[in-house]
Amino acid sequence: MSDLTLAVDIGGTKFAAGLVEPDGQVVTAERAATPQGGDAETLWRTLTSLLDRLDVPAALAGVGVGCGGPMTWPEGEVSPLNMGGWRGFPLRGRLAARFPGVPVRIHNDAVCLAVAEHWCGAGRGSAAMLGMVVSTGVGGGLILGGRLIDGGTGNAGHIGHVVVDPEGPPCGCGGNGCLEAIARGPGLAAWALAQGWSPGDAATEGDLYREEGTATARRLAADAAAGDAIALAAMARAGRALGVAIASAVNLCDLDLVTVGGGLSQAGDLLFGPLEEALREHTRMEFAGRVRVVPAALGQDAGLVGAAALVIEGDRYWRPGL
Amino acid sequence: MSDLTLAVDIGGTKFAAGLVEPDGQVVTAERAATPQGGDAETLWRTLTSLLDRLDVPAALAGVGVGCGGPMTWPEGEVSPLNMGGWRGFPLRGRLAARFPGVPVRIHNDAVCLAVAEHWCGAGRGSAAMLGMVVSTGVGGGLILGGRLIDGGTGNAGHIGHVVVDPEGPPCGCGGNGCLEAIARGPGLAAWALAQGWSPGDAATEGDLYREEGTATARRLAADAAAGDAIALAAMARAGRALGVAIASAVNLCDLDLVTVGGGLSQAGDLLFGPLEEALREHTRMEFAGRVRVVPAALGQDAGLVGAAALVIEGDRYWRPGL
Repeated sequence: MSDLTLAVDIGGTKFAAGLVEPDGQVVTAERAATPQGGDAETLWRTLTSLLDRLDVPAALAGVGVGCGGPMTWPEGEVSPLNMGGWRGFPLRGRLAARFPGVPVRIHNDAVCLAVAEHWCGAGRGSAAMLGMVVSTGVGGGLILGGRLIDGGTGNAGHIGHVVVDPEGPPCGCGGNGCLEAIARGPGLAAWALAQGWSPGDAATEGDLYREEGTATARRLAADAAAGDAIALAAMARAGRALGVAIASAVNLCDLDLVTVGGGLSQAGDLLFGPLEEALREHTRMEFAGRVRVVPAALGQDAGLVGAAALVIEGDRYWRPGL
Repeated sequence: MSDLTLAVDIGGTKFAAGLVEPDGQVVTAERAATPQGGDAETLWRTLTSLLDRLDVPAALAGVGVGCGGPMTWPEGEVSPLNMGGWRGFPLRGRLAARFPGVPVRIHNDAVCLAVAEHWCGAGRGSAAMLGMVVSTGVGGGLILGGRLIDGGTGNAGHIGHVVVDPEGPPCGCGGNGCLEAIARGPGLAAWALAQGWSPGDAATEGDLYREEGTATARRLAADAAAGDAIALAAMARAGRALGVAIASAVNLCDLDLVTVGGGLSQAGDLLFGPLEEALREHTRMEFAGRVRVVPAALGQDAGLVGAAALVIEGDRYWRPGL
C-alpha cells in the first residue's frame, strides 16, 4: 500500500484533485473549471478526467473529499447549492467503487478548510478553534478538544447561520438576520448598492476575491480602500456582523482561535478593524477575551490538504466507527 | 475502595452534598442554606459541617463538585459571582486535602446540570445536546459527539452570552444584547416594570422559581398566565430571545436536543410557545429543523447527579489527562 492519499476538492468554480503525503505536502495537483450547468454525468466525467491526468498509484492510503453542501453525511450523497446537476449524487459511493478497499471519506468543503488550518496552517496546536471562510457564502468548521466536531449529522460549523440581527435581511437558508445574509460578498455589495453606492473602476487583477459572485464585492473593497463613504460603511457593517457572530461562538464554545479565509478576508483592516471592535465589545468575560482572530495561512491547496486530513489524521478529524 | 461517589453542589441559595451510586442514584443527601455575606472560612465550615452530617465512607470512588462560576479550571479556584466570600478560593484543593488519594473533579454548576440531563435525564442518548438553565442567570453545557465539551478553559456552554440583539440592553458580563441580559428572571421583570407593569398578588407556594432573585419573575409569570398584556409581552420577549440564541447554537453546533431547566422554564407555554416560534424561524436548514427543545427531567438532585458524573462517567464527562 502506498502512503499517498488522494484528495478531491469540489467547488462551484473549480474541481481539484491531488496526491498528498502523510505530512500534508501536496505532491501533485490538477484543476479544472466546474462545467457550468453540467448534468450529473458531465460533472462526474470532469472529475474522472482530472483523476486520469493524475498519476494515481495502484495502492492508496485512502481518498479524502471536500465538497460544497448540503450532503447526507457520512454517506456522501451530495447536492451542492451552486451545482444544480448534482442532487443526491452518490459522490462518495462512486469514488469508493473506483478505489475499492481503502477508506473514502467526505466532508463539507468549509469543514475541510478548517481542518487544513488546524492540521497545517494558522490553527496548529489550538484546542478550541473555529475555521471560517468568508466569500460568496460564510461557512466554517469547529475543532474542540483538539478534534473535529461533526455534530449529529456532520453539519457543525455553520457559523454563517448564527443570527446577528433577528430582524435582519432574509438569508438563503430561509431564515433571516443570519451572518451570511449580511457578510457574504454579494450581500454586502447589494446593501451598498441599495444605499446609493456606484461601483468605481477597481483593479480586477490577481487572485483576490476570485470566487464566483464576488466581483462586485471586490469593487466594493477597492472603493472602500479609496475612501468611498458608502463602501466603507458596507465593509464596517459586514465586519461588525462577523465580530458579533464570532463573539457568540467564542462565548458558547470557549474558543481560543478563529481563522478567517476566503476572498473577502483579503480586504484586511477594512474588514478586520470593525470585526475586532465588535468582537471585543461582546467578549467581556475573562475566558473569552483571550481569543485571537487571524487570517487563514494556507493558499489554494487548503481544500486538498483538509480533504486528505480526513484520511491521514482520521483519529482527530474523522469520527471513530464511521 | 467504596463504589460510592461524594457529590457536592455549591450555589448562591443552598449548598448540597450527597453520596451517589455508580448508576446515578443519590443514596443520601444533606442541604444547608448558603450563609449570606459569609466570609471564606464561614462558607467552608458550612460545607464541612454538611459533609460531617453525611455518613461518608472511609473509601470513596471520588469527589465531584458543581459550583457557580467563574473559576479557574480544572484547578478549581472558585469565585462564584453571588458568593462574595469566595474569591479565588481553592475549593478543589481543600476537598482534595480532605479526601486524599481519590480524584476530585470540579465544574461549573450549569455544566453539571447539563451532564446530569445527558447521563440520567431528558438528554439520554443524544449525540449533540445543549443543556440549559434559565433562572437568575442563563447558563448551560454542551455535549457533542457524546462527550462533554470543555472548550479551552472549561467555559464552553455559556449560552447566556450568545448575542441576540447587538444593540440590546447591557449584560452583567460587560457586553450588551446577550441572551442573559434579556431572559434572566430579574431582567425580564425589570423590562416589564419599565413598560408600566404593576405586579399583582401571585401565589408564591411550592417549588417554582425558588432561585434567588426570581420572586418578581414568578409574579410576572403568574400575571402573564392571568392575561396581563405587559406580562405576556415580557414572557414572549424572553421566549423569543431564547429561541434566537438556541437557533444560533443549533446552526453552529448541529444539535439534536436542547434541555431547558431552572425556575423560569416552569412558565410552560408562555415561554416555550414564543421560544419555539422564534427557533423555527431561524432554523430553516434541513439538519437544524430536527432539533427538539424539551424541559429538563431531573429535579433538585440534578446538581449532585451531574457532579458525581464527572467521576463516575469520567470517560464522557471529564477530559483525559486532567
